[in-house]
Amino acid sequence: MAIQRYFIQEPTSGAPFISVAPIISLAAAHENIVYLCGVTADPAHPGDIKGQTKQVLERIDRLLSKAGTDKSKLLSAQVWLTDMAHFEEHNAAWNAWVDPKNPPVRACLLSPQLWQPGLLVEIMVTATK
Amino acid sequence: MAIQRYFIQEPTSGAPFISVAPIISLAAAHENIVYLCGVTADPAHPGDIKGQTKQVLERIDRLLSKAGTDKSKLLSAQVWLTDMAHFEEHNAAWNAWVDPKNPPVRACLLSPQLWQPGLLVEIMVTATK
Amino acid sequence: MAIQRYFIQEPTSGAPFISVAPIISLAAAHENIVYLCGVTADPAHPGDIKGQTKQVLERIDRLLSKAGTDKSKLLSAQVWLTDMAHFEEHNAAWNAWVDPKNPPVRACLLSPQLWQPGLLVEIMVTATK
Repeated sequence: MAIQRYFIQEPTSGAPFISVAPIISLAAAHENIVYLCGVTADPAHPGDIKGQTKQVLERIDRLLSKAGTDKSKLLSAQVWLTDMAHFEEHNAAWNAWVDPKNPPVRACLLSPQLWQPGLLVEIMVTATK
Repeated sequence: MAIQRYFIQEPTSGAPFISVAPIISLAAAHENIVYLCGVTADPAHPGDIKGQTKQVLERIDRLLSKAGTDKSKLLSAQVWLTDMAHFEEHNAAWNAWVDPKNPPVRACLLSPQLWQPGLLVEIMVTATK
Repeated sequence: MAIQRYFIQEPTSGAPFISVAPIISLAAAHENIVYLCGVTADPAHPGDIKGQTKQVLERIDRLLSKAGTDKSKLLSAQVWLTDMAHFEEHNAAWNAWVDPKNPPVRACLLSPQLWQPGLLVEIMVTATK
């Protein structure tokens, strides 16, 4: 069965920030599983950890919606923080967003840098349709 | 098909250690694939790299069992060490545990910190049923 | 359905470099999904970021081929760099390789060390058959 790939025009593209952005799909769906790219906040307006986490989760909502699903059908998530001191503030924003009866499995790791300076959190998820 | 989510009461909850623990599933099963959360040792009794790896793998055994499968059906694993100097000692504990005829694919990365101080290794796996 | 596991003899084994290499599969296929291990360059001849990325992607091509698929069917990729200053040079090599109409979702993280000194990039992918 074919893979449905999504190249959604988002207000944040890497173009203004880096001269060579990687060619990727923002989302890919195969059979009834949806894979999302690693999502960060807008590097031009990143904000603090709470604001960035909120931005990231709103982008994930939009990508899941485009792919025909939503956060109640999340399977797995990986979170990378640039500073583990942000863990609890990040969790507060995560907990305000996640469907408490249907949370994904998750791991939260440290990536001391992300693709652009100023970014504090990146999240990558998979979901069912 | 519905996702079966597992919220197993484990002796180690984040509760004593952090004021805002993330809402997650410990395991999620969809069709015949099982996804486990990132698993660490008990932050109250972490021990050295060998002991922590053993603890983590025993917790993975328990979670796989609850989800109706076992380590011979692992598909993939990601391992994060806080210090790559622990690589060989970690591997020795891994090799003593893994089914040598049925090992998963694996990547071993560095996460200089994990969700609690003192933790040296986190492992996240998927398996078939 | 059984998991097909691949233990392909590669010119680069961990054996000369570490005394305790982990027991893993290089690739595992289940139903129509293929999982590859985290792939690095040859630690004996790593080269710069561009050369290492090229080496890694060639190894991925070989593993995908053994498992009966190719890069046009990639679902997801995770990239770990040891220095985010290599991001654009790495991307240039990635973009020269990836099928521009069929790129996977991707996240690019920092792992300040990889399993052997001198390694600058590791990539782990999944694909459909």
